[in-house]
Amino acid sequence: MLRLYDYLDSGNGYKVRLLLAKLGLAYELVELDILKGASRTKDFLAKNPNGRIPALELEDGTVIAESNAILFYLAEGTRFWPEDRLARAQVLHWMFFEQYSHEPYLAVLRFWYRHGPMDAARRQQEPDKRERGEAALEVMERHLLSRSYFVGNSMTIADIALYAYTHAAEDGGFTLSRYPAIGLWLDRIASDHGHVPMLPEGYVPERLG
Amino acid sequence: MLRLYDYLDSGNGYKVRLLLAKLGLAYELVELDILKGASRTKDFLAKNPNGRIPALELEDGTVIAESNAILFYLAEGTRFWPEDRLARAQVLHWMFFEQYSHEPYLAVLRFWYRHGPMDAARRQQEPDKRERGEAALEVMERHLLSRSYFVGNSMTIADIALYAYTHAAEDGGFTLSRYPAIGLWLDRIASDHGHVPMLPEGYVPERLG
Repeated sequence: MLRLYDYLDSGNGYKVRLLLAKLGLAYELVELDILKGASRTKDFLAKNPNGRIPALELEDGTVIAESNAILFYLAEGTRFWPEDRLARAQVLHWMFFEQYSHEPYLAVLRFWYRHGPMDAARRQQEPDKRERGEAALEVMERHLLSRSYFVGNSMTIADIALYAYTHAAEDGGFTLSRYPAIGLWLDRIASDHGHVPMLPEGYVPERLG
Repeated sequence: MLRLYDYLDSGNGYKVRLLLAKLGLAYELVELDILKGASRTKDFLAKNPNGRIPALELEDGTVIAESNAILFYLAEGTRFWPEDRLARAQVLHWMFFEQYSHEPYLAVLRFWYRHGPMDAARRQQEPDKRERGEAALEVMERHLLSRSYFVGNSMTIADIALYAYTHAAEDGGFTLSRYPAIGLWLDRIASDHGHVPMLPEGYVPERLG
C-alpha cells in the first residue's frame, strides 16, 4: 500500500491527500510532528534527505518527495493531467508559480500565525511577505476573471496545488473577500466529486509560542 | 521563430538558453533590463502577468513562463525528459527542490552581491539565506556522491535546472570546493555536447548601489 508521511496542518501535504482521495487510492498515513523535528530524524532523512513532508513511499520502498512532484506522479494518466503538450506545460507553470511566488508567503504567514511564535524578527518580515502574497493572489484573481480553472476547462493538479494554501489564506491574515473570482473558484474546487477537507473537524493547531 | 524574453545575468534564463542551444533550436532573444523594471511594464505583464523573465513566446503568440515549465515544454520527446514514469517524477522532484530550496538562497545572494545594494536589511538576512543555501548544496552533494546525474544515468532537465545557479554559486559567496561531488558533476554538465556559457566573455554586471 502507498504510505504518506505527512503533517495534517500542512497545505503541501493536503494537496496529496486531496488527490489521493479524489483518485480513490488507499494509503497509510504516517503523521510526523514536524514542530518537534520528526522530519529531521536520521530515519526520515534516509527517506527524504531534504527533511520535508509530504513524502510518498511506494510499495517497493521508493520515496517521492516535493508535493507537486507527487501530484504529477499520481496524476499522469488521470483527468487531472492534460493530454495536450502546451496544457501540460501550463499546468507546471502554475505549480512552479505556487511553489515560488505563492507558498513562501501564504504558507509561511499561515504557519507563523497558527503555530507561532510571532516574534520581533517575524513581525519585521511580515509586511514584505504580505505584499508578495497579495501580489500572487492578484495574479490568480486576474487569471480567474475569465476562466473556471487554471488550465483548460476542467480541474487539473494546478488547481489542486493552488487550492491548498489559497483556501486557508485567511489563517495567515489574508482577506479572501477581496478576490471574488478566487472565491468562486474555491467553491468550484470544493464542490468537485470526491472532495475532502484539509483537517478533521475541531482540529486545534499546536503552538510553539 | 521562438522568442525568449530574458535577462542575461539570470540563471533562470540561462537554463532555457542552455537547453535551446543543446536542442539546436533557433530563437530570437529579447533582452529586458529587469533592474530598470522592464519586466513590469504593461506590455510585458500582458505576456507574463507575474512580471518575471524568462518567458518563451511561441510562434502563435502563446507565452510560457516559469523557467522550469519552459524546460519541461522544450524537453518532452527529447533525451532530457525520461520515458519512465518514476524517473519523470524524480526529475520534477529536483526541479521543485531547485525553485523552493535552492534558488531563493543561491540566486538571491548572487543577485545582492552582483547587483547590490547590500544594505543593512540584506546583511541581516544574509546568514539565514547562506545557511539554507549551504543546506541545499549539502543535499545535492550527498545525492551526487553515488551518481553521475540527478536522475538515472544521463543528463535531464533536472541537471540543467540545478546547474544554472549552482555553477555560479561563488558569485554569491558560496565556496564550491567544499562540495567535490558537485564539482565533478558541474564539469560533467559543462563537457556535455552543445554546452554554452551563461554570459558572454567580459560581461560586467550592472550595479544598483
